[in-house]
Amino acid sequence: MRINLIPSIEYIKEEEMEGKNVVVIDVLRATSVITTALYNGASEVVTAVEIDEALKYKDENTLLGGERRALKIDGFDFSNSPIEYSREAVFGKRIVLTTTNGTKAINKSMRAEKIFIGCMMNGKAAAKKIIEYDKDAFIVCAGTYGKFSLDDFICAGKIINDAVEEKDVQIDDFAAAALLSYRDNRDDVISYVKNAYHYKYLISIGLEDDIKYCFREDVFDVVPEYRNGSIRL
Amino acid sequence: MRINLIPSIEYIKEEEMEGKNVVVIDVLRATSVITTALYNGASEVVTAVEIDEALKYKDENTLLGGERRALKIDGFDFSNSPIEYSREAVFGKRIVLTTTNGTKAINKSMRAEKIFIGCMMNGKAAAKKIIEYDKDAFIVCAGTYGKFSLDDFICAGKIINDAVEEKDVQIDDFAAAALLSYRDNRDDVISYVKNAYHYKYLISIGLEDDIKYCFREDVFDVVPEYRNGSIRL
Repeated sequence: MRINLIPSIEYIKEEEMEGKNVVVIDVLRATSVITTALYNGASEVVTAVEIDEALKYKDENTLLGGERRALKIDGFDFSNSPIEYSREAVFGKRIVLTTTNGTKAINKSMRAEKIFIGCMMNGKAAAKKIIEYDKDAFIVCAGTYGKFSLDDFICAGKIINDAVEEKDVQIDDFAAAALLSYRDNRDDVISYVKNAYHYKYLISIGLEDDIKYCFREDVFDVVPEYRNGSIRL
Repeated sequence: MRINLIPSIEYIKEEEMEGKNVVVIDVLRATSVITTALYNGASEVVTAVEIDEALKYKDENTLLGGERRALKIDGFDFSNSPIEYSREAVFGKRIVLTTTNGTKAINKSMRAEKIFIGCMMNGKAAAKKIIEYDKDAFIVCAGTYGKFSLDDFICAGKIINDAVEEKDVQIDDFAAAALLSYRDNRDDVISYVKNAYHYKYLISIGLEDDIKYCFREDVFDVVPEYRNGSIRL
């Protein structure tokens, strides 16, 4: 079994996904939101690329969430802050989420056998899931506006670390670079992420608590899966 | 001034090179060979993609070097081992070099303003050179067979480290990842590189001495430059 890393969506070759399993990571913050919402009892998460598309889903059982430039969208119920997706707010509801990067990463991974949702909070569970299927896998970092982002890279490193601790899998050099960066910085991942362009932007708009929330490790043992237009547990 | 990192030649967008300066890295071993040969008095290095093309240059003042799958080519004077390119062997001679990755990286960087040759052995000099020109720059990792390779990544990290120590330049997240990997491992870069696929291959064919040679830092203060089909000091 082999695990390769795709460092951001601009590097996805859709045809290479064929028959592989994929873990999509957009740790700040789409995949952290999706994992939180489903853990807290949302019935499903549907992703939409455009705001107009998301608005069409709106009904009494559906809540809209998402961001543009990391800020809440007019007429939406939630921003892209995972902290808002509490059990009280989301239990039994469908969430329609529009985000810039995570949604696109899922859409570009459609030819994969299975598409899982990973973040720091369910990293070990995500690693176990791909190991359990024993099939070649890609870890796909969504990145920020299509570009490579340190926060997704270190999160990929954590999932790869958990996978190689579980089983003797082969990894490519990109996966090795992420794994080594995680191991060198696992005692203080947030200090590592402080070097990210996207981190600086999120801090500048007051989202430090979100970052602390998203970088907690292995607090959820669930792995959301995308299937037929919807993400569920 | 900004320095961005291109992690391997498959990610080069040739149009983005326009007007920028570039440092091409193929630390194991093309750019280490080129730097060694020119430091030792070779008059110029010409790169060729194909073996037949290289053979056409052969004359009494020209020596042929290069590799396929890291091994010497029939009829060539040198393999791709930098240790062979001694002062006695190369002084005053033209070297024609065909290598799988480094040559292609140079060829895909043709639209850049200036193309410099970087490796661990001239890393600080290469960093000073791009800082001196004060123009946006790309560090281009050749990689191995077009794929991202840990050895070029950590070498890029060293050059970026030397550049940011020299001047307050902006860097993208890829450059930051390389910089942090270098800083986390600068006391023992070879142990880091042991995780590379390409390292394992080179060791398997007995090239450990080459690796030790190539990972010495700042032993040459020269920066070769590609211009009009030829690389010179």
